[in-house]
Amino acid sequence: MTAASERRVSTLVDRYLPAVRERMRASVPIVEGDVFGILRYHLGWQDSEGRPASEDSGKGLRAVLVLASCEMAGGQWREALPAAAALELIHNFSLLHDDIQDQDATRRGRPTAWTVYGLHPALAAGNAMRVVADRTLLALSEVGAPPETAAAAAAALTSRYLEMIEGQYLDLSFEESDEVTTGEYLDMVSRKTGALIDCAMHIGSLVATGDLRTAAAFGRCGRELGLAFQIRDDLLGVWGDPAATGKPVGADIRRKKKSMPIVHLFQQADPRQREWLRSAYAADEVAGGDVESVLEMLADLGAREFVQSTAAEHAAAAVRAIEGLPLGAEAKADVHAMADYFIERDK
Amino acid sequence: MTAASERRVSTLVDRYLPAVRERMRASVPIVEGDVFGILRYHLGWQDSEGRPASEDSGKGLRAVLVLASCEMAGGQWREALPAAAALELIHNFSLLHDDIQDQDATRRGRPTAWTVYGLHPALAAGNAMRVVADRTLLALSEVGAPPETAAAAAAALTSRYLEMIEGQYLDLSFEESDEVTTGEYLDMVSRKTGALIDCAMHIGSLVATGDLRTAAAFGRCGRELGLAFQIRDDLLGVWGDPAATGKPVGADIRRKKKSMPIVHLFQQADPRQREWLRSAYAADEVAGGDVESVLEMLADLGAREFVQSTAAEHAAAAVRAIEGLPLGAEAKADVHAMADYFIERDK
Repeated sequence: MTAASERRVSTLVDRYLPAVRERMRASVPIVEGDVFGILRYHLGWQDSEGRPASEDSGKGLRAVLVLASCEMAGGQWREALPAAAALELIHNFSLLHDDIQDQDATRRGRPTAWTVYGLHPALAAGNAMRVVADRTLLALSEVGAPPETAAAAAAALTSRYLEMIEGQYLDLSFEESDEVTTGEYLDMVSRKTGALIDCAMHIGSLVATGDLRTAAAFGRCGRELGLAFQIRDDLLGVWGDPAATGKPVGADIRRKKKSMPIVHLFQQADPRQREWLRSAYAADEVAGGDVESVLEMLADLGAREFVQSTAAEHAAAAVRAIEGLPLGAEAKADVHAMADYFIERDK
Repeated sequence: MTAASERRVSTLVDRYLPAVRERMRASVPIVEGDVFGILRYHLGWQDSEGRPASEDSGKGLRAVLVLASCEMAGGQWREALPAAAALELIHNFSLLHDDIQDQDATRRGRPTAWTVYGLHPALAAGNAMRVVADRTLLALSEVGAPPETAAAAAAALTSRYLEMIEGQYLDLSFEESDEVTTGEYLDMVSRKTGALIDCAMHIGSLVATGDLRTAAAFGRCGRELGLAFQIRDDLLGVWGDPAATGKPVGADIRRKKKSMPIVHLFQQADPRQREWLRSAYAADEVAGGDVESVLEMLADLGAREFVQSTAAEHAAAAVRAIEGLPLGAEAKADVHAMADYFIERDK
């Protein structure tokens, strides 16, 4: 990654994120001793005793893409703030339910909400987060968006969100199977991760222009960026530098995550290898020596290069998606920088 | 209950329900082997093998109230069909998640979705149902509602729905406590059950009139009807005729449901009785002989009469809520019949 790309993305994040966080805080009702306390805990705003905190609440990727798209398309980014906060809240809703579904104990270095408050309250808190997100999006019309734009944004969120759920469902069913192809895997990622990032760029540019064709092009750009982002994530989960990711090499192999490298490996393995893989993956956790063997098989396949080149293809498709639009040079440079950053980042 | 009230309500149900069911079927995407199969199973449209079925899919109470309110307020009920289907879908979304939260094995005489498909797929299916509901509501503008009405309906659904989640959360926390007052209990019911029925009548009349004041009055009427309905439900759960309800006498006592009679009993018990109650309720299930003793304590308190008179008060408040509106005699007779039916029904 060029240092220039990273600086350019950092500049966007620094410009937008404080306003997004402020808008999110304004969205979550402050009532003591109720379900919203769980939302604030999950978002890193309070600790498990209800004391104010200021913990890591994620990269804010989706919110930044809403506001950047609004500005790239010629709009005033502050007018898209309700949409940016809404996307971030929807993302966090899905994380709350994901943690329950995956029985994950840790998120962003803290105990997950369901381990602190119990499964039922955390499930209800997830549902509440989704409603808070909807309410926040409806506020678009209060900051100047015409009713048609607000309605089109709500419709976009609803359909992309449904795609996201379909993707999560497919992801669950893939865990049970070792017959998944990389094509099927990427289709699942396009829904699970791509749909919401599509939505972010769609709505951001829609607020700026009110034009559905422009919004569709930005949406396609987001969809490809989402794919590139997730594929790079998959790569880092296997080969990431432990010093940067905080996870040991092969972490996703040990925990049997069916990410792109492993889907590719199962698909390419000869019958003997496949039999061995099945037995290694039959354990609750892939054993240390077996992790080494899997890493060697991946190396023999050139899997890392295959995964990275797939990420790069989607990053290039993201840039192409907005090429036909009459955007300024700065806007195009921003998209280039994001595409570059998404596939070269180390953490 | 007068036979006339029951006939009047049946006439409304028979007129509306087939169209509602048709609109609901049009809302749920037909795709094989995916998350929507779970929705169709839960709704009684297919069996667990995916074969078409036509099972009991509930009373359709909320949908009927949307359409009745639309017609009572002078509108064409077919214009409110997307809202009626949406409310019914939201209700079913909450049942899907409720069954997970309460670990219930049976719903409408069939195994619950999570017992058939697993917890994670059923949770995802619940989320999908909620999105399908949102999409269905958005279709209001396609059948003639002006954008402001569609937006006001979406805002009403979102805020009432958030109230419903708060109510569910309160309900969960009440299960752990024996210090809840009947006032607190009814406040919880007003949110958990009342909010969505408020929403049904609010939106139905809004589609008819576009007038927020009229909609607010209908909403208050719905809120009170919802309270009356739930309180009667609580009564039937303890004293219902087994031949009508399909449940043994004292069924809700045995399963330790903290419904209104029991909340009242804990509140009114003297210290000795309360100690006994705590020990009886410490078991996984209240024992047969203890169920008898609880029934005797309730009889000594006159709890059944207290509960029924509270239901009647809310039914009367429902009728009063729309008294000031310029409605026809038929409309007022419909509300009377519903209020009457809700507090006198046997099942």
